[in-house]
Amino acid sequence: MKKRIRVKAPATVSNLNCGFDVLGLALNEPCDYIEIELTDTGVVEIEEIRGCDSLSRDPDKNVVGVVLQAIIRNTGISSGFRVCLEKGIAPGSGIGSSGASAAAAAFGANELMNGRFTQTEMVSFAMEGEKLASGSSHADNVAPAIFGGITLVRSYRPLDIVRINVPSELYCAVILPETEIKTSFARSILDRQIALETAVRQWGNLGGLVAGLYLEDYDLISRSLEDHVAEPKRAPLIPGFAGMKTVAVEQGALGAGISGSGPAVFALCGGLASATMVLNAMEKSIRSAGVNFKSYLSPVSRTGAVTC
Amino acid sequence: MKKRIRVKAPATVSNLNCGFDVLGLALNEPCDYIEIELTDTGVVEIEEIRGCDSLSRDPDKNVVGVVLQAIIRNTGISSGFRVCLEKGIAPGSGIGSSGASAAAAAFGANELMNGRFTQTEMVSFAMEGEKLASGSSHADNVAPAIFGGITLVRSYRPLDIVRINVPSELYCAVILPETEIKTSFARSILDRQIALETAVRQWGNLGGLVAGLYLEDYDLISRSLEDHVAEPKRAPLIPGFAGMKTVAVEQGALGAGISGSGPAVFALCGGLASATMVLNAMEKSIRSAGVNFKSYLSPVSRTGAVTC
Repeated sequence: MKKRIRVKAPATVSNLNCGFDVLGLALNEPCDYIEIELTDTGVVEIEEIRGCDSLSRDPDKNVVGVVLQAIIRNTGISSGFRVCLEKGIAPGSGIGSSGASAAAAAFGANELMNGRFTQTEMVSFAMEGEKLASGSSHADNVAPAIFGGITLVRSYRPLDIVRINVPSELYCAVILPETEIKTSFARSILDRQIALETAVRQWGNLGGLVAGLYLEDYDLISRSLEDHVAEPKRAPLIPGFAGMKTVAVEQGALGAGISGSGPAVFALCGGLASATMVLNAMEKSIRSAGVNFKSYLSPVSRTGAVTC
Repeated sequence: MKKRIRVKAPATVSNLNCGFDVLGLALNEPCDYIEIELTDTGVVEIEEIRGCDSLSRDPDKNVVGVVLQAIIRNTGISSGFRVCLEKGIAPGSGIGSSGASAAAAAFGANELMNGRFTQTEMVSFAMEGEKLASGSSHADNVAPAIFGGITLVRSYRPLDIVRINVPSELYCAVILPETEIKTSFARSILDRQIALETAVRQWGNLGGLVAGLYLEDYDLISRSLEDHVAEPKRAPLIPGFAGMKTVAVEQGALGAGISGSGPAVFALCGGLASATMVLNAMEKSIRSAGVNFKSYLSPVSRTGAVTC
């Protein structure tokens, strides 16, 4: 009898303001789930997709299919995979929906193949899914979805992922407005060139944020949560963004910004009580703007993809 | 009788490859020295400059004079300062010559004024000297010259300096070719705009370097010591650069690059034995290129400016 396992991978908040394309963190929820088994067909079959009507079951057009095909192709195994995908994370939400599916697929395959891949190799396979979903094979969602915690993509070529210390009281409030932004579009509106002066500000903050995370210095983390690159371009796409950011900071958030390419908006907070107040204020703000939304409150998850 | 004190401030290596304009570290030597006393004249007098013929004693045209005048102007004190400056660091060397003089002046004045300034305020005054010397008021030399250790300028406006952990075995080998590069010229040849992709590579490495310093992970430090911004432009200005960098890495340096705007070349090493081998190889390399030079080998200094 073939072994069939169930795997989940979490939503993730990437960029974290100053870390465009390199930083990301894992949430506890929501998650994508897959059931996956090895077959002897040599191909990938997607039996069923639950929780989302818009995704294709064609393995060439589905993130999970693309990741598993890349694994078959790269390892030369004669096996195939049969998969059921259950989407808990809405596509185009900015909290790593495609990244969670891709991470679950890479992690699940690794479990079935006796753990032959390193975590970085799993990220590398999962990036194939990101390429399909967004047109760019970025790793800032799939890295935390696999490693858990907060990750830094130090380098893409070669791929080099660093797990950064997570202060114990770091919580994340997330508002997900009911509007979709395609990552490919959100990338297309960014300037291809940025002023050196702007880049210096951004990497000064990135250094400050990484230092703050190791020092567990919440003030330094707070001061470092600035985005001079993506937010100025992308904020206008998100209904109610400015209002949510303002109230989040007023209520004591360490910082707030766009999660990935949006429309999700995140606020990092020191402690559960603070995060609860911040989330309430953000909910009130977006509700008063007349926008439907979902909301999540989560510590930074220490674990990424797991069997369940 | 007026109190007269003697102060020294160390040479510094700024940028550290991936941290253009934000990172710097303090060496043990060489140093600049000043003797400084409070007067009742309300003005700055530079009595004598030793160790360098090319610097002006006019306080408007001398780094030390400019820093001390800024302190008088900003604090509204009626006192003045009388100073002797002893240059141990050659101007235009790339190891923070003007920065050390500026730091010594700010630190010395603070000592005479009963420690009324924070370290960050001292950096802020010292930056006035950098503005005179190089046309830009950067802080990546004066910050480590005052704080000691490794510093990150998280932000320039407001000025926010973070002292980064220094691994115990971190040593620095420095070769100072006998050629001068004006910082203002070395800045003028940089592109004002950089590709977003290049910026992402640079801040990925900066995050990796900061993480590596906290983790005391010498491999990660080594992988992060890349410069995709300044080195490609400035390396051609430095005689024998490519050869020195190659042999430094071959001999086990964690990384090597241009110190500040050059012409000094530095190599970071794990341990004194490694640093000694690396320095010997770099000396041999530049000697075979027929270039005169000075060389220094130093642990990263825990202290910046001190009385002596």
